[in-house]
Amino acid sequence: MKHLLDPMDISVEEIDELLDLADNIMEEPEKYREVCRYKKLATLFFEPSTRTRLSFEAAMHELGGDVIGFAGADNSSASKGESVADTVRTVECYADIIAMRHPKEGAALVASQNVNIPIINAGDGGHQHPTQTLTDLLTIRSLKGRLDHLTIGMCGDLKFGRTVHSLIRALSRYSNIKFVLISPKELKVPRYVKEDVLKNNENVTYVQYERLEEIIAELDILYMTRVQRERFFNEEDYIRLRDSYILDTEKMKLAKDDMIVMHPLPRVNEISVEVDKDPRAAYFKQTLFGKYVRMALIMTMLGVNA
Amino acid sequence: MKHLLDPMDISVEEIDELLDLADNIMEEPEKYREVCRYKKLATLFFEPSTRTRLSFEAAMHELGGDVIGFAGADNSSASKGESVADTVRTVECYADIIAMRHPKEGAALVASQNVNIPIINAGDGGHQHPTQTLTDLLTIRSLKGRLDHLTIGMCGDLKFGRTVHSLIRALSRYSNIKFVLISPKELKVPRYVKEDVLKNNENVTYVQYERLEEIIAELDILYMTRVQRERFFNEEDYIRLRDSYILDTEKMKLAKDDMIVMHPLPRVNEISVEVDKDPRAAYFKQTLFGKYVRMALIMTMLGVNA
Amino acid sequence: MKHLLDPMDISVEEIDELLDLADNIMEEPEKYREVCRYKKLATLFFEPSTRTRLSFEAAMHELGGDVIGFAGADNSSASKGESVADTVRTVECYADIIAMRHPKEGAALVASQNVNIPIINAGDGGHQHPTQTLTDLLTIRSLKGRLDHLTIGMCGDLKFGRTVHSLIRALSRYSNIKFVLISPKELKVPRYVKEDVLKNNENVTYVQYERLEEIIAELDILYMTRVQRERFFNEEDYIRLRDSYILDTEKMKLAKDDMIVMHPLPRVNEISVEVDKDPRAAYFKQTLFGKYVRMALIMTMLGVNA
Repeated sequence: MKHLLDPMDISVEEIDELLDLADNIMEEPEKYREVCRYKKLATLFFEPSTRTRLSFEAAMHELGGDVIGFAGADNSSASKGESVADTVRTVECYADIIAMRHPKEGAALVASQNVNIPIINAGDGGHQHPTQTLTDLLTIRSLKGRLDHLTIGMCGDLKFGRTVHSLIRALSRYSNIKFVLISPKELKVPRYVKEDVLKNNENVTYVQYERLEEIIAELDILYMTRVQRERFFNEEDYIRLRDSYILDTEKMKLAKDDMIVMHPLPRVNEISVEVDKDPRAAYFKQTLFGKYVRMALIMTMLGVNA
Repeated sequence: MKHLLDPMDISVEEIDELLDLADNIMEEPEKYREVCRYKKLATLFFEPSTRTRLSFEAAMHELGGDVIGFAGADNSSASKGESVADTVRTVECYADIIAMRHPKEGAALVASQNVNIPIINAGDGGHQHPTQTLTDLLTIRSLKGRLDHLTIGMCGDLKFGRTVHSLIRALSRYSNIKFVLISPKELKVPRYVKEDVLKNNENVTYVQYERLEEIIAELDILYMTRVQRERFFNEEDYIRLRDSYILDTEKMKLAKDDMIVMHPLPRVNEISVEVDKDPRAAYFKQTLFGKYVRMALIMTMLGVNA
Repeated sequence: MKHLLDPMDISVEEIDELLDLADNIMEEPEKYREVCRYKKLATLFFEPSTRTRLSFEAAMHELGGDVIGFAGADNSSASKGESVADTVRTVECYADIIAMRHPKEGAALVASQNVNIPIINAGDGGHQHPTQTLTDLLTIRSLKGRLDHLTIGMCGDLKFGRTVHSLIRALSRYSNIKFVLISPKELKVPRYVKEDVLKNNENVTYVQYERLEEIIAELDILYMTRVQRERFFNEEDYIRLRDSYILDTEKMKLAKDDMIVMHPLPRVNEISVEVDKDPRAAYFKQTLFGKYVRMALIMTMLGVNA
């Protein structure tokens, strides 16, 4: 694994190793406090994403490394007409590994073709965000104990939601996965995801629902995403359905005792704050898992060990 | 002291301990260089304040710790509609202590109710800025040798000046404090400060003046703040009084030899630059004291010792 | 060398020492990893320059030091009306050395007159950028083995290009330097540079050309800069000449086997990307040399040794 551009760049075996390493870091963080001493991470955020940037920076610091970079607003070289290739070739002189976010699809790929240090794609447009997918896998494996034999509800905007598509692809490599796809008609999983991943895959079955309350009782995992009003074709549908995509304590009463609720965050109102106190709410734990999986990833890509 | 939200959150005894620790750090900084190794401070500046942010960051580095955060412009999560509560719950996964500045009053309180790590209020709107008050107390104690038996002139905009109100409250707990309040009529100390703090307090007396030159000779400390033209009700008053609120070498000639001049900075023209060379000018020393009191505060709130 | 404001602040002997130190750092970087432990660099970028800022920050980290600062957008004190003098006097309380970039000529000089810690001018308006000049000198000495007996082509906009003027001045102190100045008529080296440096200097000869292809074969070094269309007086000239100022593989065929191509970067299209693969392309190496010369400079100005 030279670069991490797409969640599917990593084999199931490599994911296992990465999550095992993350587990080990969580158990004995002291062992890893100096492993990246004298190494530098560059966080090149051509568009801002505070949450993701801080997660990478915290990860590097907890490994004893240093961080340089820019957060979006101050990237003056791009505004002077410099290409992404030239920017990363420059930063290669300053850092040992790069985490980059860019509004254009394929920017991380271009970067990876121009440098000899590892590139981590921290989001390229609506395209890929592989460390979110690894975060989701570590969260599931840590809280449910496995990545197979799971019934996973995905609720909200399944059409435009990049994290949902990546997670579907990633989980479809494990056996006996049942996807419960809950969305308004307009915001169903796109046909190409169905054709590529869900159909003709012996590991996977899937069903589609329009209302969360109809099916929440059967889920091991509920993965929430936001439904934006402007994505609905007509106001009538929006009014009829909107409450189905807001998770509240009433709907939680219908769910299993050991179901977990995930969300890539930030949330707006799609999960009521009263749900936060429910022990099944896993979305802030997910943020914590995200830091640990990034620590494991940085170590793996830099080839350092505890 | 779990969080520091309001200058009055700290008892006189706790302030003594904090200032003693700051003294000790100033005397032997080498002893403290590693006490926060492996700890992280998050500086969450929802509005920019370069001076305060850099003071916190320098303080954490001088204790051996790391810093992550945002400086205002790049806080993308807030712009995506995330609540302060969610932001700090996320950052709790990344850092051991948070210093936050926010344009809304009460934001730091909300933050403190949602996390298990210490929150330091680095300014919430026009409300509170407790580390400025601690800075002022350390400056006074260091340069005057005491926090009681003092005649303190406060000059300029005493109506809207948050730092002045906080310092009045803080000092009113020490004995024999005489406040000399120097301001235009329109910008006097608000009635609620007078009712709450100045009246019926055996520790405190106060007098009010309109012109600095009338009373500067009696002061042990002169605390300057800026008077903005637009705060005056009429142009005539402004022209008549403006020079009274500008400290220059002429007015300094009237003052005691051991008076000290303080200012929370940044200044514009309310202290003439020629005064900077006067040994009684203490405002840049005040900045230095601000770093040391923040070091003491971070250590105390993290529960670490040298 | 208390401050570094102008490339000519440093004597030839001091430059030799600085480049020798940079050489040594490149050979044995491990020896220098802790020399600035417990020191802090402040990067005060009153206007953004990502490339220069990251170079300084990487340099300080590779010496074991810490970094605080601002990147342009978030400098709130300046927007509150604070003077440069006051800003640096504040930052003097927080850091051991300052690298500052400012849009106004002379800002670094003003800063240096107000503090007791070293100031490095990282660019003040169209004025000076001495660490770029040091970078260029280290690149030439490292790749050509000497700073004298050289034929140096400078191509592009020689009128407004600050880096070109500084490099001409710096090299004119070494013996037997031949400058080949290649530019459109409108963008020739200004008269004052000719009068001050090129004429009546026994070390230096110079010739002027309008087209790169006419003279590239004689060069030891080709220093490229960008020619902006709007700098031409008329469209006809622009169309006639523009291709002469774009370096491509065709022109590289005419050059010596050991010529090196330099560029201060960022480039837009003045060097074709196909040239990047040519071993004579030295502009990304130049970026790397820039980091090492800044490491040597920080060490020298802080007075630390390995």
